[in-house]
Amino acid sequence: MSFPLPLPMRRALDLAAVAAESGEVPVGAVITLDGEIIAEARNAMRGNLDPTAHAEMVAIRHAATRLGRSRLDGCELWVTLEPCAMCAGAIALARIGAVRFAAEDPKGGGVVHGARVFSQSTCHHRPDVLGGIGEDEASVQLREFFAARRAPKSHTVNFTDDC
Amino acid sequence: MSFPLPLPMRRALDLAAVAAESGEVPVGAVITLDGEIIAEARNAMRGNLDPTAHAEMVAIRHAATRLGRSRLDGCELWVTLEPCAMCAGAIALARIGAVRFAAEDPKGGGVVHGARVFSQSTCHHRPDVLGGIGEDEASVQLREFFAARRAPKSHTVNFTDDC
Repeated sequence: MSFPLPLPMRRALDLAAVAAESGEVPVGAVITLDGEIIAEARNAMRGNLDPTAHAEMVAIRHAATRLGRSRLDGCELWVTLEPCAMCAGAIALARIGAVRFAAEDPKGGGVVHGARVFSQSTCHHRPDVLGGIGEDEASVQLREFFAARRAPKSHTVNFTDDC
Repeated sequence: MSFPLPLPMRRALDLAAVAAESGEVPVGAVITLDGEIIAEARNAMRGNLDPTAHAEMVAIRHAATRLGRSRLDGCELWVTLEPCAMCAGAIALARIGAVRFAAEDPKGGGVVHGARVFSQSTCHHRPDVLGGIGEDEASVQLREFFAARRAPKSHTVNFTDDC
């Protein structure tokens, strides 16, 4: 028996697919407040020429603009991949109340791997964290994206080694 | 005998002073390439309603735009306070070659304190790091800023508890 995905994660996975179509590592993020989506984004580092344009960062900035405040108390962030150290730091600084992510990222994650930002004494806000929501679909998206990048160049005209 | 500060750190300290005048925690950052300043910024979280608008983040985004690429190979980042986990993560993602900071930040730093982002196996680029350049002046700026915030409200009309 399988349960339907929560709508914000369904939307984040769809955004991740859009990222992949644009040659970006497929990660999507959605921010909700009181159950309503108030901001959404997908990876845009290459397209925006911005190394900080991870989906979570762009969504946080959009949410702050929409709410007219620099802190996102009470908000939930839904993202298809475990946030890296940069994004985890931003989540804490923004005082986001909860993080829901799909796939873990043993190679680059900063929540349950690596820097474990929320577990440090220098972290002054610890959101509630839950992973594994939509993990199967997110993992397939990422695996297929990187498999295509590793394929012979004649089959990967849309991708380069620079993500 | 005292040595003059390197010009990029002198400029970063001046930018930090501008931040303080605007009610922002006094932190300034400058990015150089081949000895030339190509981007600069100061904290703007409150003014921009953007929790990610630390001086380093804004400078990185400006530098990437100026260079027309999402990686800042060969660049040096000069900043008046030890970068937090978010900024350290961004520095690694941007492939910045060297970080020069002034004051350490035992309560919020992410380079030589807390998450120690560059020391994690999940960090795929480790810049050369040197701290303590201009530390005395940066520490005074920060101490005076927070002392003014802690003073009775009648004497701190420009500051609130929200930075």
